[in-house]
Amino acid sequence: MRVKIYVTLKEGILDPQGKAVKHSLHSLGYTSVEDVRVGKYIEIEIDDTAKEKLDPQIKEMCNKLLSNPIIEDFRYEIEK
Amino acid sequence: MRVKIYVTLKEGILDPQGKAVKHSLHSLGYTSVEDVRVGKYIEIEIDDTAKEKLDPQIKEMCNKLLSNPIIEDFRYEIEK
Repeated sequence: MRVKIYVTLKEGILDPQGKAVKHSLHSLGYTSVEDVRVGKYIEIEIDDTAKEKLDPQIKEMCNKLLSNPIIEDFRYEIEK
Repeated sequence: MRVKIYVTLKEGILDPQGKAVKHSLHSLGYTSVEDVRVGKYIEIEIDDTAKEKLDPQIKEMCNKLLSNPIIEDFRYEIEK
């Protein structure tokens, strides 16, 4: 089973990497870019576990290791 | 308009960050995790440009700055 996890900074948290990318895009001439936020995209291959066990497991992984719950949000999709 | 960009390592390219995350997940007890790949997730707010102009512009941004086309693939979604 494949799980796709998206980790993004919470709204209101400053994103210096995104700001740097925005400035680089402006210098390249893409001045219509108004804002850039950079996050993480994680793909996990996981052994076939029962769906009802998988959901809490993924939330736990995200909270313990894959994201910093103080400054980041996460969402995920499970693909068969 | 919001554009969501996903940058991932091409298949076959070694992902040491993913490997490290996999090992950490195993040490935390999630031994059913078989593989982890880590990529980037980028959200761009862009001024309302005509859709037919936006598509090539985003591809260009990805190839020039946001991804390394030699080792990375990208895909994107445009949200109104």
